[in-house]
Amino acid sequence: MESRNAILLLTCPDKKGIVASVSNFIFNHNGNIVHAAQHTSETDKIFFMRIEWELNGFDIQKDKIGEAFDVLARRFDMKWDLHFTDRVARTAIFVSRHLYCFYDLVFRHRTGEFRTETPLVISNHLDAKPLAESFGLPFYHFPITPENKAQQEARELEELQKHKIDLIVLARYMQVLTGRFVDLYPNRIINIHHSFLPAFAGGKPYQQAYDRGVKIIGASSHYVTESLDDGPIIAQDIIRTSHRDSVEDMKMKGKDVERMVLAKAVKLHLEHRILVHGSKTIVLE
Amino acid sequence: MESRNAILLLTCPDKKGIVASVSNFIFNHNGNIVHAAQHTSETDKIFFMRIEWELNGFDIQKDKIGEAFDVLARRFDMKWDLHFTDRVARTAIFVSRHLYCFYDLVFRHRTGEFRTETPLVISNHLDAKPLAESFGLPFYHFPITPENKAQQEARELEELQKHKIDLIVLARYMQVLTGRFVDLYPNRIINIHHSFLPAFAGGKPYQQAYDRGVKIIGASSHYVTESLDDGPIIAQDIIRTSHRDSVEDMKMKGKDVERMVLAKAVKLHLEHRILVHGSKTIVLE
Amino acid sequence: MESRNAILLLTCPDKKGIVASVSNFIFNHNGNIVHAAQHTSETDKIFFMRIEWELNGFDIQKDKIGEAFDVLARRFDMKWDLHFTDRVARTAIFVSRHLYCFYDLVFRHRTGEFRTETPLVISNHLDAKPLAESFGLPFYHFPITPENKAQQEARELEELQKHKIDLIVLARYMQVLTGRFVDLYPNRIINIHHSFLPAFAGGKPYQQAYDRGVKIIGASSHYVTESLDDGPIIAQDIIRTSHRDSVEDMKMKGKDVERMVLAKAVKLHLEHRILVHGSKTIVLE
Amino acid sequence: MESRNAILLLTCPDKKGIVASVSNFIFNHNGNIVHAAQHTSETDKIFFMRIEWELNGFDIQKDKIGEAFDVLARRFDMKWDLHFTDRVARTAIFVSRHLYCFYDLVFRHRTGEFRTETPLVISNHLDAKPLAESFGLPFYHFPITPENKAQQEARELEELQKHKIDLIVLARYMQVLTGRFVDLYPNRIINIHHSFLPAFAGGKPYQQAYDRGVKIIGASSHYVTESLDDGPIIAQDIIRTSHRDSVEDMKMKGKDVERMVLAKAVKLHLEHRILVHGSKTIVLE
Repeated sequence: MESRNAILLLTCPDKKGIVASVSNFIFNHNGNIVHAAQHTSETDKIFFMRIEWELNGFDIQKDKIGEAFDVLARRFDMKWDLHFTDRVARTAIFVSRHLYCFYDLVFRHRTGEFRTETPLVISNHLDAKPLAESFGLPFYHFPITPENKAQQEARELEELQKHKIDLIVLARYMQVLTGRFVDLYPNRIINIHHSFLPAFAGGKPYQQAYDRGVKIIGASSHYVTESLDDGPIIAQDIIRTSHRDSVEDMKMKGKDVERMVLAKAVKLHLEHRILVHGSKTIVLE
Repeated sequence: MESRNAILLLTCPDKKGIVASVSNFIFNHNGNIVHAAQHTSETDKIFFMRIEWELNGFDIQKDKIGEAFDVLARRFDMKWDLHFTDRVARTAIFVSRHLYCFYDLVFRHRTGEFRTETPLVISNHLDAKPLAESFGLPFYHFPITPENKAQQEARELEELQKHKIDLIVLARYMQVLTGRFVDLYPNRIINIHHSFLPAFAGGKPYQQAYDRGVKIIGASSHYVTESLDDGPIIAQDIIRTSHRDSVEDMKMKGKDVERMVLAKAVKLHLEHRILVHGSKTIVLE
Repeated sequence: MESRNAILLLTCPDKKGIVASVSNFIFNHNGNIVHAAQHTSETDKIFFMRIEWELNGFDIQKDKIGEAFDVLARRFDMKWDLHFTDRVARTAIFVSRHLYCFYDLVFRHRTGEFRTETPLVISNHLDAKPLAESFGLPFYHFPITPENKAQQEARELEELQKHKIDLIVLARYMQVLTGRFVDLYPNRIINIHHSFLPAFAGGKPYQQAYDRGVKIIGASSHYVTESLDDGPIIAQDIIRTSHRDSVEDMKMKGKDVERMVLAKAVKLHLEHRILVHGSKTIVLE
Repeated sequence: MESRNAILLLTCPDKKGIVASVSNFIFNHNGNIVHAAQHTSETDKIFFMRIEWELNGFDIQKDKIGEAFDVLARRFDMKWDLHFTDRVARTAIFVSRHLYCFYDLVFRHRTGEFRTETPLVISNHLDAKPLAESFGLPFYHFPITPENKAQQEARELEELQKHKIDLIVLARYMQVLTGRFVDLYPNRIINIHHSFLPAFAGGKPYQQAYDRGVKIIGASSHYVTESLDDGPIIAQDIIRTSHRDSVEDMKMKGKDVERMVLAKAVKLHLEHRILVHGSKTIVLE
């Protein structure tokens, strides 16, 4: 049987006594710490921590932990989030016509690589419909035109709220989301960009890479912010290319990197290992 | 001005309250934790920790910290080591005829990549003498034959003790040390083996790799134990090879990997980031 | 429209005039060379070549090219194979209970990464049946016991011959094939071994890697020979691991590497880029 | 004894018969081809070739080969260069205050990684002087100010011409060369840029990388053109970074990548393996 744990992610100005106070809080209530990692940003002295403990034996009820911790949190001026490993996050996947990232996520999910529920697959095209249905995933078709974009996003948001979605994964979704949409899910929308950001931001990154004659191509997963391709990077990886590779070859090679980099970001997010600080991520593995 | 810190490395059976107790110890004496990382081994439930704090403001004198901590340590049945960042470790480099690792270490040292003193370069050959001397490093020549091995090792040990050596780096030293020698410096002798261990242990690993037709070659740095090429691995890295590479090409390609992997291990050791558990290392970065 | 090309793979003792003779053969019959790569083994002076030319305009009929070339081939004592890009190779996939490699191959095939037909999926278990059938691939169940092994292999061979199979891919097929079976498909059976060979040959490589405490794990694709895990290596890749990874974590991480390394080998084979020389491959990209 | 070989690099519009004609030329004069590699650019159908043969037994005198080949070259409208492995190229190294790339090049040279003579080390600072002199390399100090730049470059060019320099290596030379200077050494000036181009072109790339929060940093070697950091890329490599790395940590990590990427480019150039086509390199290994 899998153990039920609590995970606390916290951010505050660095100060003596934070680790002692947080670990005392857990120990004094009879918790057993199973993971702890921390970081202090060098330039602005902000402290970041991820701490995970077993709920088995912990003497505060789950729904009272936040309230109890908040006393301590106020003392250190902390921003914090509390998660429980027995709560399964609800993920919506947005996809357009390239299906390999979608496919990969679903297969990883099936084989137990990450725990989530996916009550919602949204697309501006119909290409993903058969695949979604073969996996038993509800598929919603919202075709987008310049004219209907605002209206369609409103309908999407309605579905996201109805299905209590925690995380949105843009698995090669070829539409830019509006600022209004993005603001509703801060650090909860993960995109995959098929280049080694900040190189080749924007459209057709493989064509750009081909034209520039680079020897390595890459992919970057990041949280979506209003500013396109500019959100906090979560994971990146690369693959070698050469003069022999056409744009099509690069696209094919790049698929593997895109799939792995997106899956890594989704996994890190679902395990509550990412803190965001300004335009950067702190990943506490 | 660089801050003076204390670093505690500890190992004990996993139990509730360790993190709280250790961080309380530091906080109650007015220390500011600047790094903390921990690990619990899954199979035998052993807890490992590295914790670093600033001595500035800490209210126990440096030479009393160990004594003070030992009370707590006994409670949890801890093995522990205490280090101070203002104490410069003393390293002896052993080298034979291939000088690139020796050269690399000295150059990294010069350009500030790691802090150590090197009062002793020992070799069974004379090839490294001019280089050592050009860097102002005392060079000792102890030629080894089957007949004089025990005697020469005794002389080497004498020098090591006289110079209060903390760490021995075998920078392509082509002699096997005796068990007696190794026992005197447990987890304090770092070797570089020019293969991706455990593949191609023993002699002529590049020839072995060539004969097997592998597509990747590597290097491994490890602590030396009595059993050759079998000590706890600290770092490994690889480089691609192909049918085009001769044994000589592999040797040349491998040099870069060997240099980096050895330097990484030396740096991790000097920063007190390595704990040894049985035949494995826990590296707390 | 894709061009129809001929591909010649040849091996012979190195000698002046081979390249000139082969390229003259093609040029004199009005062929346009689109790829040529060669290698001479350093130690035994054997020459290897892959040369590909367009059939469009070539003035020898496809079915007469071999005969025509053989005159030249005899002069240089060549072993050679002639392939045509418009002939689609027929692949059988063998699988046991781990389905991720199987899945991956089928998906890559679907998205155009390699051209082949797969008229045959063979397994000693039933786990892959639904997946095979959902992709419309004929599934054959041949459970293996020590008692029925020879008999079941005979039935498998019958199917392989009936379906005119060119290439057998062991996509995590957990059975050792008999020498008799292997001899019938020399350099035409590709296996994926879930370690960085020759490290951790044999069973449970991830457990072995965990026990040894390596910092990098890998996967190797190779042609199957009678001697287990010892055939010519086609491709290898690695992924980093650490003390934090359990055996299960390694298995999960390793999946991505296994999938990519197997897919790469299958692609290279289907594109006729691999020559085998003794226990090694020459891969002419 | 090392064999003396001729190496031909050629570029021409793709056409039937090129390989046959070139290999006939060599074979008819009794040459033995030891390396041949080719490439045809997909979009504009340009053919590139590197072909190397033994001069031993070749029946045209070295100084007549060019003339003899030119007849054939005209027929195919080839641009071509002829090199001989027994001619040692003459390299000038330009360096500023960061010495690790300079050091690395000299050490690789010493240990036989590439064959060249270095009659000239040029710097705008004095930092490299002791190192150059300890290696017996003539050191020239040309301090640069906005006012004297043109004049100092003129003096540098004088030295380069006097010493018959074939290749200029900018081993972290922190000055932009003028267009006039660059034009005199087309595709013969190699620079190392300490980022994964085109990301972070311009100044302070590690600071830029830190600010953007990337998870991978890199280095790029390229031929210098008038347009800064925009010349044809020869080699690139990367290293992982994380939130834990300060700008200083990145600089330190990056050194290894910079050194290897620069050394690789210099080696490829000295072995005459690079052809330039527009803004890209074709590297024929």
